[in-house]
Amino acid sequence: MHPITAQLVHQTIRPRPAESYKGNYGRVLLIGGNQNFGGAIIMAATAATYSGAGLVTVATDPQNFASLHARLPEAMVMDYHQTDAVLALMAGVDVVVIGPGLGTDPGADQLLSAVLTAAKPQQRLVLDGSALTLLAATPRPLPASPIVITPHQMEWQRLSGLAIKDQSPTANRRAQRQLGVIAVVKAHHTTIYTDQDVWFNPGGTPAMATGGMGDTLAGMVGGFAGQFSDFTAAILSAVYLHSAIADDLAATRYVVLPHQISALIPEYMHRYSVAVPD
Amino acid sequence: MHPITAQLVHQTIRPRPAESYKGNYGRVLLIGGNQNFGGAIIMAATAATYSGAGLVTVATDPQNFASLHARLPEAMVMDYHQTDAVLALMAGVDVVVIGPGLGTDPGADQLLSAVLTAAKPQQRLVLDGSALTLLAATPRPLPASPIVITPHQMEWQRLSGLAIKDQSPTANRRAQRQLGVIAVVKAHHTTIYTDQDVWFNPGGTPAMATGGMGDTLAGMVGGFAGQFSDFTAAILSAVYLHSAIADDLAATRYVVLPHQISALIPEYMHRYSVAVPD
Amino acid sequence: MHPITAQLVHQTIRPRPAESYKGNYGRVLLIGGNQNFGGAIIMAATAATYSGAGLVTVATDPQNFASLHARLPEAMVMDYHQTDAVLALMAGVDVVVIGPGLGTDPGADQLLSAVLTAAKPQQRLVLDGSALTLLAATPRPLPASPIVITPHQMEWQRLSGLAIKDQSPTANRRAQRQLGVIAVVKAHHTTIYTDQDVWFNPGGTPAMATGGMGDTLAGMVGGFAGQFSDFTAAILSAVYLHSAIADDLAATRYVVLPHQISALIPEYMHRYSVAVPD
Amino acid sequence: MHPITAQLVHQTIRPRPAESYKGNYGRVLLIGGNQNFGGAIIMAATAATYSGAGLVTVATDPQNFASLHARLPEAMVMDYHQTDAVLALMAGVDVVVIGPGLGTDPGADQLLSAVLTAAKPQQRLVLDGSALTLLAATPRPLPASPIVITPHQMEWQRLSGLAIKDQSPTANRRAQRQLGVIAVVKAHHTTIYTDQDVWFNPGGTPAMATGGMGDTLAGMVGGFAGQFSDFTAAILSAVYLHSAIADDLAATRYVVLPHQISALIPEYMHRYSVAVPD
Repeated sequence: MHPITAQLVHQTIRPRPAESYKGNYGRVLLIGGNQNFGGAIIMAATAATYSGAGLVTVATDPQNFASLHARLPEAMVMDYHQTDAVLALMAGVDVVVIGPGLGTDPGADQLLSAVLTAAKPQQRLVLDGSALTLLAATPRPLPASPIVITPHQMEWQRLSGLAIKDQSPTANRRAQRQLGVIAVVKAHHTTIYTDQDVWFNPGGTPAMATGGMGDTLAGMVGGFAGQFSDFTAAILSAVYLHSAIADDLAATRYVVLPHQISALIPEYMHRYSVAVPD
Repeated sequence: MHPITAQLVHQTIRPRPAESYKGNYGRVLLIGGNQNFGGAIIMAATAATYSGAGLVTVATDPQNFASLHARLPEAMVMDYHQTDAVLALMAGVDVVVIGPGLGTDPGADQLLSAVLTAAKPQQRLVLDGSALTLLAATPRPLPASPIVITPHQMEWQRLSGLAIKDQSPTANRRAQRQLGVIAVVKAHHTTIYTDQDVWFNPGGTPAMATGGMGDTLAGMVGGFAGQFSDFTAAILSAVYLHSAIADDLAATRYVVLPHQISALIPEYMHRYSVAVPD
Repeated sequence: MHPITAQLVHQTIRPRPAESYKGNYGRVLLIGGNQNFGGAIIMAATAATYSGAGLVTVATDPQNFASLHARLPEAMVMDYHQTDAVLALMAGVDVVVIGPGLGTDPGADQLLSAVLTAAKPQQRLVLDGSALTLLAATPRPLPASPIVITPHQMEWQRLSGLAIKDQSPTANRRAQRQLGVIAVVKAHHTTIYTDQDVWFNPGGTPAMATGGMGDTLAGMVGGFAGQFSDFTAAILSAVYLHSAIADDLAATRYVVLPHQISALIPEYMHRYSVAVPD
Repeated sequence: MHPITAQLVHQTIRPRPAESYKGNYGRVLLIGGNQNFGGAIIMAATAATYSGAGLVTVATDPQNFASLHARLPEAMVMDYHQTDAVLALMAGVDVVVIGPGLGTDPGADQLLSAVLTAAKPQQRLVLDGSALTLLAATPRPLPASPIVITPHQMEWQRLSGLAIKDQSPTANRRAQRQLGVIAVVKAHHTTIYTDQDVWFNPGGTPAMATGGMGDTLAGMVGGFAGQFSDFTAAILSAVYLHSAIADDLAATRYVVLPHQISALIPEYMHRYSVAVPD
């Protein structure tokens, strides 16, 4: 089990080449946010945007358009009920994040299936939150795309069949291999299972134990996945920085709000891009 | 009559254990915010979230969803007209805050009764604002749950039958015992009546004399009640910190806005968790 | 012609008595904001709230509720089409500000007339923006209430019949006496005409030459009028501080946005309440 | 090919005369923001407002009113489907910015044609984003007004017929002369083609490679065009300051969000108005 290191993050987040444009930094589509959980997709999209994604589109319930734009004018929006339009736009993106606040009703279930069916091999997928609950309830074939899932321990139990007390690295590894996806199992010290290795995140603070933290991580993973060629390194770097920012904020805060992490992503990415912080 | 002390707050707000997750810090349901008073429930939910509540859901008029999410994506929302759905969600929460901006129309009255009827003995209730007006107008049996009410002096008059000029500690004590709930009677120096003791809050400033201050306190009480096992200590700590933050802000401000208090709750909770401030 | 002095402002904005509550600091009703000019009433209400008004209600087009609450949860809202409800609430307020973004359609005209008819002698009125345009187009009897109008030079031309080039202090004085209201004639150096005196504001900067400045002043006047017993002193102090804040901001800004002024009102009021600044 | 210099910006952004009012600083109408791209017009309008435009009106889909006002109460709004009302208001403005988030459906196309037809010779036009896509798809006569277009390289390819690899200064110059408008061709170092000269912008950073940057520049160009008499100098100054702010922010940020640039425009304009920065 390897720790994610500051060195790895530094080697992943490289200074951007001068001659580049927004198309070089990832087209990211985030899908989620029903009439009850709109905040989740807002937080995920915020994290993706502040992570440097070149273009961010949010497919969500139209109820969430006003609040999303009030917080994040940088994102584009579309009605996630219009499946054909979502799939048409999806055809041109580099990364799809699906799940934050998506809910588990039949419409959500069908949308997840449609997205999984439409995914192309070169598109990266981030499955989070409700998408994992839906998958656990109704397993379905996963596309050949690079896929990362970001379950918390209860979602992981549903997906893997492993009770929380049985979620040892060895058992998790076995379950991950059966699923065939990279698994980010969120806990006090998050562990990440790839086909090659098992990683753990040295950071993390109980000040992060509040709603929306996972949505923010999913958005960061999506944002990083659109920019950095090594998918695993992108995921590991997002996990590391998400908690590194929280740890620093928690030095003076009893609880850290998700949007406070997103606001600092650009500065932390810069810091790690130029040097390995102490 | 005991003063609430910084020492008591310090002993209540303990550093969080490393191995913990959002479910450990309270599921809080806030109910309120009609078509005229939506800001009240926004302010209460903001205070609960910044107080460190693990999961916050707001049952309100759908008109308020966009503004709530624009300010607080961390909260989940539901339509408070759907009583069955509200009660179903309520069954799984640790704390219910009802009243801020709820209004006093028949729908609000029925919702209050439904919530009081559905409350389980282990759920903590915070009754504020319109809920107190409704209770005074139509007394009804209170559940066996731990309950705190947070009236200002006029609301307390309606509830207790005591004219403001007659609201002495002794008379208040008697009225509180009849009601059988913890009573936070808000005034320049707020007094708190429990079955065991009478407390007074040493802080407070006339810079707090502005709309929304009470909604913010109700949200803080709800947030603290979801995290700290001693209900009375949680309430007293919320009352104390609410005014401690305001007092500090008022050193340079003629009026303190409620949302300015909420923004500082995480830092003040941290400060009191590590030491007794001077 | 007297300059408004820092001394006058200091003598007006007194430290608040410890034993006081929000009802002591003014119930302010702001009326305005149609489907095109919603921002105007948002800015006015923001200024009133940050000026320390105890309770702020905004009667506006419902289209503006979400954006108002997203910026200012401290305010209550109501639909200004429901004239009876507006008048019923108005009966209990101390100050009415009418005009910012109200527009000049027949509905606005009727609402203005209804408000003028319903005003009680002890209620203070602030007439601004569209209300002045409507009054100029259709003069109507003004109530016996203390009234202040806040025209810019073109609105003053319409009201007084004085072309801008003829708006000398002497001519303005004569027109003000005929109208029987306090007139704040906004210009680079704003002049204020009362029954007793003519005042001029020493401050002001061309960085304030941007939309919404007047709405912000109207809201400040409303907020101050609800708190300070001397109506004239309240008005003069609002005019003075509005530009004093702008002058300070303009030391480092080419243009000052209205909401930036409002954000600083509490700190400036505090500063003047404790001493005469240099 | 001339570099835009700090000296040129300094000579353009002059201290404002004391005796002036908002009408002196430009009435700017921005048209755009459909149901998917509302954020684009919000960002453009924010940039125009923070650039010091005297009065800003946004014609957009009504869906965007709430989010626009939540971020920018200083702007007025109107429904861009009401073409007659848009044209009526347009008759009184100094600058029209059309295109950000406008989309390319038939309604957008007709609105663009109506605006181009209605433009008066003394009105300045800024054509951006979707307006350029529409123009390239269906060329139409341009009015005699001073016009600037702000294409990125792909939009410029569509408009000029020059493949990106063929967009040399000489070829661009030729294309610009045929179009008869000032062309701001956005790239790592943006180049600007006027009838007299070719300019290049020395600033720019890959941290700007994110959605909304162009919308922000279009809004700045509109804001500057309403204030500074020399149209070319206004455009050049907007281009220069837009990247100068981004370059400074990028010293500590891996990505710069468009709204972060707008927030700093007033301070940068002030700085350049008083001296040539080092």
